[in-house]
Amino acid sequence: MNDKKKKPQKLRARLPRGFVDRAAADIRAVDEMTAKIREVYERYGFDPVETPLFEYTDALGKFLPDSDRPNEGVFSLQDDDEQWMSARYDLTAPLARHVAENFNDIQLPYRTYRAGYVFRNEKPGPGRFRQFMQFDADTVGAAGVQADAEMCMMMADTMEALGIKRGDYVIRVNNRKVLDGVLEAIGLGGDENAGARLNVLRAIDKLDKFGVEGVKLLLGPGRKDESGDFTKGAGLNEEQIAPLLEFANFKETVAGVRYSNALDDKVSYPLPFRDAPDTWADHVNLPADWRAKAASLTGLIKPPAASNDTWNLDNLSIFALIFKANEKIIEGLNELAQIAILAHAAGYGEDRIVIDPSVVRGLEYYTGPVFEAELQFAVTNEKGEKVVFGSVGGGGRYDGLVSRFMGQPVPATGFSIGVSRLMTALKNLGKLGMEEVIAPVVVCVMDRDTESLGKYQQFTQTLRHAGIRAEMYQGNKKNFGDQLKYADRRGSPLAIIQGGDERAEGLVQIKDLIEGKRLSGEIEDNTAWREARVAQVSVPEADLVAKVREMLAAQADDRARGD
Amino acid sequence: MNDKKKKPQKLRARLPRGFVDRAAADIRAVDEMTAKIREVYERYGFDPVETPLFEYTDALGKFLPDSDRPNEGVFSLQDDDEQWMSARYDLTAPLARHVAENFNDIQLPYRTYRAGYVFRNEKPGPGRFRQFMQFDADTVGAAGVQADAEMCMMMADTMEALGIKRGDYVIRVNNRKVLDGVLEAIGLGGDENAGARLNVLRAIDKLDKFGVEGVKLLLGPGRKDESGDFTKGAGLNEEQIAPLLEFANFKETVAGVRYSNALDDKVSYPLPFRDAPDTWADHVNLPADWRAKAASLTGLIKPPAASNDTWNLDNLSIFALIFKANEKIIEGLNELAQIAILAHAAGYGEDRIVIDPSVVRGLEYYTGPVFEAELQFAVTNEKGEKVVFGSVGGGGRYDGLVSRFMGQPVPATGFSIGVSRLMTALKNLGKLGMEEVIAPVVVCVMDRDTESLGKYQQFTQTLRHAGIRAEMYQGNKKNFGDQLKYADRRGSPLAIIQGGDERAEGLVQIKDLIEGKRLSGEIEDNTAWREARVAQVSVPEADLVAKVREMLAAQADDRARGD
Repeated sequence: MNDKKKKPQKLRARLPRGFVDRAAADIRAVDEMTAKIREVYERYGFDPVETPLFEYTDALGKFLPDSDRPNEGVFSLQDDDEQWMSARYDLTAPLARHVAENFNDIQLPYRTYRAGYVFRNEKPGPGRFRQFMQFDADTVGAAGVQADAEMCMMMADTMEALGIKRGDYVIRVNNRKVLDGVLEAIGLGGDENAGARLNVLRAIDKLDKFGVEGVKLLLGPGRKDESGDFTKGAGLNEEQIAPLLEFANFKETVAGVRYSNALDDKVSYPLPFRDAPDTWADHVNLPADWRAKAASLTGLIKPPAASNDTWNLDNLSIFALIFKANEKIIEGLNELAQIAILAHAAGYGEDRIVIDPSVVRGLEYYTGPVFEAELQFAVTNEKGEKVVFGSVGGGGRYDGLVSRFMGQPVPATGFSIGVSRLMTALKNLGKLGMEEVIAPVVVCVMDRDTESLGKYQQFTQTLRHAGIRAEMYQGNKKNFGDQLKYADRRGSPLAIIQGGDERAEGLVQIKDLIEGKRLSGEIEDNTAWREARVAQVSVPEADLVAKVREMLAAQADDRARGD
Repeated sequence: MNDKKKKPQKLRARLPRGFVDRAAADIRAVDEMTAKIREVYERYGFDPVETPLFEYTDALGKFLPDSDRPNEGVFSLQDDDEQWMSARYDLTAPLARHVAENFNDIQLPYRTYRAGYVFRNEKPGPGRFRQFMQFDADTVGAAGVQADAEMCMMMADTMEALGIKRGDYVIRVNNRKVLDGVLEAIGLGGDENAGARLNVLRAIDKLDKFGVEGVKLLLGPGRKDESGDFTKGAGLNEEQIAPLLEFANFKETVAGVRYSNALDDKVSYPLPFRDAPDTWADHVNLPADWRAKAASLTGLIKPPAASNDTWNLDNLSIFALIFKANEKIIEGLNELAQIAILAHAAGYGEDRIVIDPSVVRGLEYYTGPVFEAELQFAVTNEKGEKVVFGSVGGGGRYDGLVSRFMGQPVPATGFSIGVSRLMTALKNLGKLGMEEVIAPVVVCVMDRDTESLGKYQQFTQTLRHAGIRAEMYQGNKKNFGDQLKYADRRGSPLAIIQGGDERAEGLVQIKDLIEGKRLSGEIEDNTAWREARVAQVSVPEADLVAKVREMLAAQADDRARGD
């Protein structure tokens, strides 16, 4: 028995850092958005599967961006049998565990999707939360790049289903094999350099954030941020860093080629790199001795036999050359070419899917093609600068993730959408929250005896059962004006009022709160409909529903006129 | 740099105990169900608000059932600033924090709803999970019992919106004040007995689970379960236990009175206790000396002045008498009477909402009315016994939960639905999963050169863009039969096939997999439509969509005939 007398202590109500509450408008917007995404995924033949929010820490692995130590960056706790559990940091590692655990019951290829919260135990910042939602689709047991090509097409369709028009988004594709080949070419091949490679990829991935100079420091000795925090660098020498920076610079330059109107008259190839190899070298500012090699490169990459177009992959060949082509680079580039061909055959041109060698993706577990969905339109950032909105999701092939649990290889590929970020983008575009939610009709409480309350309750239920959003005022304000103020702040369309006199006569008053607002100071743009409506009417109780319907319909007409 | 050579180690894929993955059928069923619940809550004027899955441990308080120590029963971890965080164990405590934290921006009464996962760090068992979903609605800032009455009515409407028919469910209402009054009457009043009171409530709450003898042990010295685990008892003496067991027995007896057909001819009161007070005593097996007192009790409770019915609350009066009525009991019983009146005025009879003094609810934070939604139909349990399905949710008034953070009282009431449990119930009733999900059309991969793959990809996208669920086979099986087996196991309606010959002619084959199944051994109940359909057709590529639509429509007709 508890004998200690506990004195109630006033607590401070606050959320842990990096966590937020979600308001009605955001919740409704996300629901609207995820429903549209789900529709596309279903059409592509994916089915929902979900995993819980906790996993054993070892099952999640050490694949978190910005951390190669287990437990760093995740929220972990010890179960009562001493085993470590962690809140999932993405939806991919748990899916790999799910597939491995149920391998005998699962038919491959296994095509599934899921939306859910993930957690990162990181330093929170503006727009950087420790809990956020992802919406993933994955195909497990499909080794061919056609599965990767499908992911890219599905993401393009998803963007359009959400109302983002062609040209405002692009799906950028690269291949980790290319990246790995490049790293090998600068002497970072082999198991012993696994950690170094990861550091390099993460540094390159920060190009958008820190610029070329910042990435240079991250590749070399390390970088101190504005707050004085020091991030250890990858420790490369200048000879290693120079080609990597060329590589990192690609992004900018390729984007320049891709989107420059000045170059449009030279365009002759359907692939993203439009210029002929010898002139193309100008744009990427190649060292002089590489330029000559560019022209001689034909044949290094097998030209694909597309049925309805002539393909020119010399640009990729140049790329191979620059980084002293090795087998990994060739394999990766051939896969990229095949993805481009499949996408093109299905009608997805370079305005939707582009090959972009600068796409990195921070996660360690990718083994082949990697993708990123990027929004191209400009927004104003917190510093007041116009910037391209940028990435709203990405993914790639992770052939090793399921195999970790198995005695056999299990190829897999997937795509993850950052739900909050995409929602912000859609709001910027005015593509969300278009579905109107009407606030409830408020039934005022004029008298508080049980009989009157019963009567108000009855009105409220009658309205609800007729399908009309309604509530009886439940607060402690007895004053009629205060109750109307509540209804008004709530955005209620109508208030229902019945005092003792009306009750005796079996009448009920309906007050039009929108009309009331209008009369008290808004523009009068149409006298005809204004006069046709009255601010308050009195009707027999039996006519309540019919009259409320009529007045709500009149308000809906007004809104339609207003649009 | 990481120089250690790590050897890949084979991990065991397994979920932490008490956590489960969710399959497609369950996810779709829950989505269907929560959409219907949301519609009712919205109609009642509630808006969505969500909180994150972690809170500071102190903000959650020590209100968990089966635990009065902080941290016990919850999943907790220390943030890097040493503060303790916990995964939420319900949706009510976080809402209280949310309201207190945003008190100046929130208009009261604050009517909100939310669905989400909650976590209990308990010993898992059959049907007892450590992560499960709740769907809550709450009104904060409403002191009157009309808000509690509204919760009960909303739950009744929710049950019916889900297709549970009247009579198959009941909303049971009690009042913690009554319980507290009873406890005071047996000498467990005062702050010094807070712990003991909680133990008693929890013991009584276990009546369904452990029976009268089990509860007797939990009220007294303690109880050992089948596994040998010992639960400490409340330590009451026999004089205290006897009236509590009468009280606990109420449930059964009252239910007997409520649902016995044999008593129907005596029914004359609209409240759940139908018999006149002196005869009623027979049914609850009152001690002889209490029987005389029962008749003399009229007037202890003020008879309510209902407009359209004569109310008889003598049953509640008897109850008051049995437990040596004190002020708390009277106050609680009057509140219950008012809830009954309001519900009745709005058309909710005793077939939907009943006053039942044995409803306890395990959580410590309730301060007034408590409710439970109970399903009345019988199901077969894991032991093969026919049992009433039982509770699918509950709630009550928690006037102290927000105030803990504030310098002022903030009344609140709410209701929480156990989503998984309710889903199980609806499945039992055949009320879920009625919405048909057609598996995707599978486009087979006969040739794997890039041009052929491009062609298959194009067919697939053409079907998808026409709104038809479709997928290209992404697996590694080259054999046509294996691919058809995949499509068949997937439940696909059609397979699309194009080999080299057809490609040369611009033709494509469509195989009806449902028809195929039928032909290979199912009943032939209608030769007419069977002959009208063929198992495989060859059409020009341009006619693919039209023919697929036609064949899917024919299958839909078959299903409609089959129903």
